Amino acid sequence: MNATIRLTSFVLLCVIFTHIANTQELASWVDGQAKASIIEFVEAVTDEANEAYVPPAERIAVFDNDGNLWAEQPLYFQLIFAIDRVKELAPDHPEWKEQEPFASILKGDSSKALAGGKKALLEIIAATHAGMTTEEFKQTVRDWIATARHPKTGLAYTDMTYQPMLELLDYLRANGFKTFIVSGGGIELMRVFSEEIYGIPPEQVVGSSIKTEFQMRDGVPAIVRLPEIDFIDDKEGKPVGINSHIGRRPIAAFGNSDGDLQMLQWTDAGKGRSFCMIVHHTDSEREWAYDKDSHIGRLDKALVEAEEKGWIVVDMKEDWKTIFRTK
Amino acid sequence: MNATIRLTSFVLLCVIFTHIANTQELASWVDGQAKASIIEFVEAVTDEANEAYVPPAERIAVFDNDGNLWAEQPLYFQLIFAIDRVKELAPDHPEWKEQEPFASILKGDSSKALAGGKKALLEIIAATHAGMTTEEFKQTVRDWIATARHPKTGLAYTDMTYQPMLELLDYLRANGFKTFIVSGGGIELMRVFSEEIYGIPPEQVVGSSIKTEFQMRDGVPAIVRLPEIDFIDDKEGKPVGINSHIGRRPIAAFGNSDGDLQMLQWTDAGKGRSFCMIVHHTDSEREWAYDKDSHIGRLDKALVEAEEKGWIVVDMKEDWKTIFRTK
Repeated sequence: MNATIRLTSFVLLCVIFTHIANTQELASWVDGQAKASIIEFVEAVTDEANEAYVPPAERIAVFDNDGNLWAEQPLYFQLIFAIDRVKELAPDHPEWKEQEPFASILKGDSSKALAGGKKALLEIIAATHAGMTTEEFKQTVRDWIATARHPKTGLAYTDMTYQPMLELLDYLRANGFKTFIVSGGGIELMRVFSEEIYGIPPEQVVGSSIKTEFQMRDGVPAIVRLPEIDFIDDKEGKPVGINSHIGRRPIAAFGNSDGDLQMLQWTDAGKGRSFCMIVHHTDSEREWAYDKDSHIGRLDKALVEAEEKGWIVVDMKEDWKTIFRTK
Repeated sequence: MNATIRLTSFVLLCVIFTHIANTQELASWVDGQAKASIIEFVEAVTDEANEAYVPPAERIAVFDNDGNLWAEQPLYFQLIFAIDRVKELAPDHPEWKEQEPFASILKGDSSKALAGGKKALLEIIAATHAGMTTEEFKQTVRDWIATARHPKTGLAYTDMTYQPMLELLDYLRANGFKTFIVSGGGIELMRVFSEEIYGIPPEQVVGSSIKTEFQMRDGVPAIVRLPEIDFIDDKEGKPVGINSHIGRRPIAAFGNSDGDLQMLQWTDAGKGRSFCMIVHHTDSEREWAYDKDSHIGRLDKALVEAEEKGWIVVDMKEDWKTIFRTK
């Protein structure tokens, strides 16, 4: 073998191994259009010889959480957390037995509790998410995450994260992307597990928030959570949250509902190449099947726009070999 | 030479070279207590054998901007930007000739303009910082930063950043720290130059903000800046901004005024070792000398507390060989 042949063989081997490595990295994805589109995009924007090349600092990828990184049925998991908290705090609040929305929650009828709309929801948030320091709240969430189990699957909620999406996060980071959560969920709740489960540090989590206040308590500084909405990171709020926390436009966005539409539009409208993807819940056996008529994670307008703009729609049933986290 | 001697020599050489490298990294710092304290802290928290060891993910360092990373006299530079903008926009606003605070600005009397207090300031912000898209605002700042010159030094504002602090940012990052700006200045103004000048990407800049809104303009998504204050990242606001954007407590904080006091307190009160530093403006020849009686960057309470808590106070005149950026 002369030097040229040796070099050529070496380059070929590198190409093959890289391909295998990529394949392994997305091991739970069926070899289909969705997976191929992801790989094609990532290879284009990371190849300096490609006109679509994007320098690492600008490789920003944003991910919705509920229904996109973990499941969201039969209720948003944060709402289940709030309901569990109401039950736990009830002994200190005998008045809740007669007082909505708490009375219905304590009777096990969360639908009736939530029928009170925004006002009911704010009362639940105030009772369960406010009135403590940020450190105390984190500890409460940590305890809940460690012990609570999903009513249908019996799994820990962090085990109802999606294996293919965890692989996608890893794959993007291995290619120099910085991954962010941009979710309607509470920023301080998600931060408790985002680093361990998703590999996304707290400073890369964007979410809804309540107001907080700095206080000196007996000479010790504390940040206290107040019963007042600060920011709703949903729909039109998502590009606003991205601008506030990230300060530059993502080149890749991943969502699953109409709540993600504006984030996808904002990403899609960037100057260079971008990648927009929607996870379509089509698997009633392994997970849930729902879209335009769902009261949670409604996917209607965004599905129409995906068709028009050529965004990738993942068919959960067909595209994913595994649904939940295998560790 | 036997193997043990060779190994010992090698280790010793490593130690010496590391020390020289560190020294070079903080080349504009006089070998004194401030510099020694920085190095001692960094070596302790990065040494796995030390009980003060902090894993890289938690090595968060926060820096005030005005008066800490760049100068702030005779006016905050962002205010000079606003005044320049008023002058530039004046031809489209003939009514400003008679209307305060604009009339005084146009007559060159910014003190009189600012005597109108918060109301005057909000009117100036609304006229110069709002009513355009985020992309348009960025471009305006970019143009100003490229061409504007400081009235006393004749330097570009980005050349009035402090060389010793630039070296400190580099030194911390070389030791696995993640560096953030946490400033009362406008978040979107600082982001325009923070990456190039400080090596701090937009997503690691925390600052004051006005409200923004997502809009569709002829089918093209835009984020529009509104004439309404969203968040003031100063004093009690700083720990709140840190909690909102970073989501974990810093282990090192660097400031220069009473506006940084709560950020320093919050950092100081963390569980493990922490490092708090105040830049004291003591050099009336090479920069400015001011502290407790200054209308800008007042340093009074924080200086008293630094003494009580053993925070490091940098004497600009004595501790810094060079003041401004040497590139």
